[in-house]
Amino acid sequence: MMRTRAAVAVAAGKPLEVMEVNLEGPRAGEVLVEIKATGLCHTDEFTRSGDDPEGIFPAILGHEGAGVVIEVGEGVTSLEVGDHVIPLYTPECRECEYCLNPKTNLCQSIRETQGQGLLPDGSTRFSMLDGTPIHHYMGCSTFANHTVVPEIALAKVRSDAPFDKICYIGCGVTTGIGAVINTAKVEIGSTGIVFGLGGIGLNVIQGLRLAGADQIVGVDLNPSKVEMATKFGMTDFVNPADVEGDLVAHLVELTGGGADYTFDATGNVNVMRTALEAAHKGWGESIIIGVAPAGAEISTRPFQLVTGRSWRGTAFGGASGRTDVPKIVDWYMDGKIEIDPMITHKLSLDQINEGFDLMHEGKSIRAVVEF
Amino acid sequence: MMRTRAAVAVAAGKPLEVMEVNLEGPRAGEVLVEIKATGLCHTDEFTRSGDDPEGIFPAILGHEGAGVVIEVGEGVTSLEVGDHVIPLYTPECRECEYCLNPKTNLCQSIRETQGQGLLPDGSTRFSMLDGTPIHHYMGCSTFANHTVVPEIALAKVRSDAPFDKICYIGCGVTTGIGAVINTAKVEIGSTGIVFGLGGIGLNVIQGLRLAGADQIVGVDLNPSKVEMATKFGMTDFVNPADVEGDLVAHLVELTGGGADYTFDATGNVNVMRTALEAAHKGWGESIIIGVAPAGAEISTRPFQLVTGRSWRGTAFGGASGRTDVPKIVDWYMDGKIEIDPMITHKLSLDQINEGFDLMHEGKSIRAVVEF
Ligand SMILES: NC(=O)c1ccc[n+]([C@@H]2O[C@H](COP(=O)([O-])OP(=O)(O)OC[C@H]3O[C@@H](n4cnc5c(N)ncnc54)[C@H](O)[C@@H]3O)[C@@H](O)[C@H]2O)c1
Ligand SMILES: NC(=O)c1ccc[n+]([C@@H]2O[C@H](COP(=O)([O-])OP(=O)(O)OC[C@H]3O[C@@H](n4cnc5c(N)ncnc54)[C@H](O)[C@@H]3O)[C@@H](O)[C@H]2O)c1
Repeated sequence: MMRTRAAVAVAAGKPLEVMEVNLEGPRAGEVLVEIKATGLCHTDEFTRSGDDPEGIFPAILGHEGAGVVIEVGEGVTSLEVGDHVIPLYTPECRECEYCLNPKTNLCQSIRETQGQGLLPDGSTRFSMLDGTPIHHYMGCSTFANHTVVPEIALAKVRSDAPFDKICYIGCGVTTGIGAVINTAKVEIGSTGIVFGLGGIGLNVIQGLRLAGADQIVGVDLNPSKVEMATKFGMTDFVNPADVEGDLVAHLVELTGGGADYTFDATGNVNVMRTALEAAHKGWGESIIIGVAPAGAEISTRPFQLVTGRSWRGTAFGGASGRTDVPKIVDWYMDGKIEIDPMITHKLSLDQINEGFDLMHEGKSIRAVVEF
Repeated sequence: MMRTRAAVAVAAGKPLEVMEVNLEGPRAGEVLVEIKATGLCHTDEFTRSGDDPEGIFPAILGHEGAGVVIEVGEGVTSLEVGDHVIPLYTPECRECEYCLNPKTNLCQSIRETQGQGLLPDGSTRFSMLDGTPIHHYMGCSTFANHTVVPEIALAKVRSDAPFDKICYIGCGVTTGIGAVINTAKVEIGSTGIVFGLGGIGLNVIQGLRLAGADQIVGVDLNPSKVEMATKFGMTDFVNPADVEGDLVAHLVELTGGGADYTFDATGNVNVMRTALEAAHKGWGESIIIGVAPAGAEISTRPFQLVTGRSWRGTAFGGASGRTDVPKIVDWYMDGKIEIDPMITHKLSLDQINEGFDLMHEGKSIRAVVEF
């Protein structure tokens, strides 16, 4: 049992409280990680705010981290002390029905306990100093200086990569780039439309550039996003507020009949419909990345699908984390993809609530907490 | 200019009127075909009844025929007098952007005039004896003893195949089997669920058998469909009226987690949603075949897609008609697929309206008019 510092979500809708907490050492199949940096993602805020009907409190949030292995539990063979790692909210056990099916990345081996805020043996390692258990979050809990994570939920990455950048590969980068290369499997010369130019959408844009797309259209209501998106490969920008008449018709014309691939990175169900309908008749695919508010539904006329459009979705960019995340770290280190300009703010753990304020004000792409 | 007998849709909602009509000979790129047999499909009835907002009258309906080439127009090179042919409501020009893209079968070369009930030069070949032009329908107009069809909308088939069976390949058979093999690309050992065991659904079932599916679940409100569906390969039957509780949960349990592929062959948008949600998490694909009422919409929670299900559709079973239809005729002649038991009624042209009555009463799978 050790003590560490963490930002604890004590109750739905309350600011996080930075405090000392107890942390038990790793049990069999588990690993103790010292978190060096963590990004703040919308999903953390979705839970913190109380909007997530499945949120559990008290909990230590955070799922976009990077750190170093401090101690390994019994039976851990793939990692050793000193390894640099990125925690994975979608693990990769390489043994379940899902891991053995190349069509999906949704490893189910520890899903049930993870959803309950527990480690696979059904207990928590974190507790308040008075002994009250604190729940884990998405199997990661990176808003703590130290955390315990199952071995199958850790990607081992090269040790020369900077933590304050590669933490972002734990969610946003992989989600956006993976949506393009794993889920859509975009071919060279394709056209793409990206709705929402935030932390996810920008990575979809650079994924499209990496995949060799010819035309990369960005759509956002906020024109301040143009400069950054252009830097990442956007060739055309559309602000829906500036379009007279029908947005779908405008996008279909701009892309010469609709885009080969469209991506929703807003989480707005109306945008998801626009994205589907702006996909090319006959073969256009639309990929939902955004997470909609609880209960919201998408809809369209079935004729849109009968005439050849496909509607799909992606979680963690279709990436199998232990296999794919180390490759994406290499791409970053080799300069094939960029991350640095998207890390717009650096905070200390004590400033973590300011990070959520920046998110709400639309001022940050990614705020990163460094320990 | 010749005379022929046809069943004319004189106005929306009226019974067809069998009469003598004028038919001009084929112009450049066109072919005069003597229709030997034609099936009656729901789409004909959708237009006849007036439910189709894009219906045009007067018109000669019918799009599921087979016949013999009587005369070819100038420049026709791929067909000659005496060839046996199946008219194609989805043509295959092999030159347009769509034909050249292997992801789609939706040839667009004559779409605009076809949608207006005209041949590609913008005129009709049919007229009333008083000279009033009669519109073509889906580029086929097989409810006439003779019709004129563009060369690119005729599949040449072997001459030993019986017209009264292979006419069904002009729509129903190809749509159902093609949805499985061209659109879904079902793999050996897959599980499938087919909603609606009518003229299309039965062909989806035999397509799944042909593709080597392990479990083929049929869902229909009408238990009289069980016998025929079992004959075509159904392994499990579910009548939603007999299921207590949630139909999706029942189907997910029956298929061990959801089906790899699900197909809507009802045209009911609520069924389409059930079909999507009964597809397997992670990789299940749901294919919409049914044509919904004008204005009806499908909906679901986007989470269904984000967790790995895909929603797609198919038109004419994804088949490129001139290439694929002759192969399906071969499969029938070789005994790889069955058609005969599905042709439940034979009618003369004068009895054609009885065919629509049988359809409404759910008594026929396919009624075929022989000339
Ligand atoms: N599927 C996954 O695995 C996964 C992973 C991480 C995040 N997400 C989701 O992705 C979505 C985007 O996340 P983010 O971090 O990029 O958010 P963000 O707030 O940084 O960016 C969203 C962008 O969308 C724009 N926008 C909002 N409404 C719009 C509209 N109607 N039309 C056009 N643009 C609009 C905003 O101006 C903003 O630039 C969220 O819903 C998040 O929950 C999904
Ligand atoms: N996409 C295409 O290219 C294409 C081509 C031809 C036909 N279609 C469409 O396919 C659909 C099916 O055509 P068909 O000729 O097989 O029709 P059909 O009437 O012969 O069969 C429909 C079957 O669905 C069953 N059914 C109706 N409601 C149901 C429900 N709620 N749950 C379960 N079963 C239900 C009926 O009992 C019937 O057996 C139609 O919508 C038709 O327009 C599409």
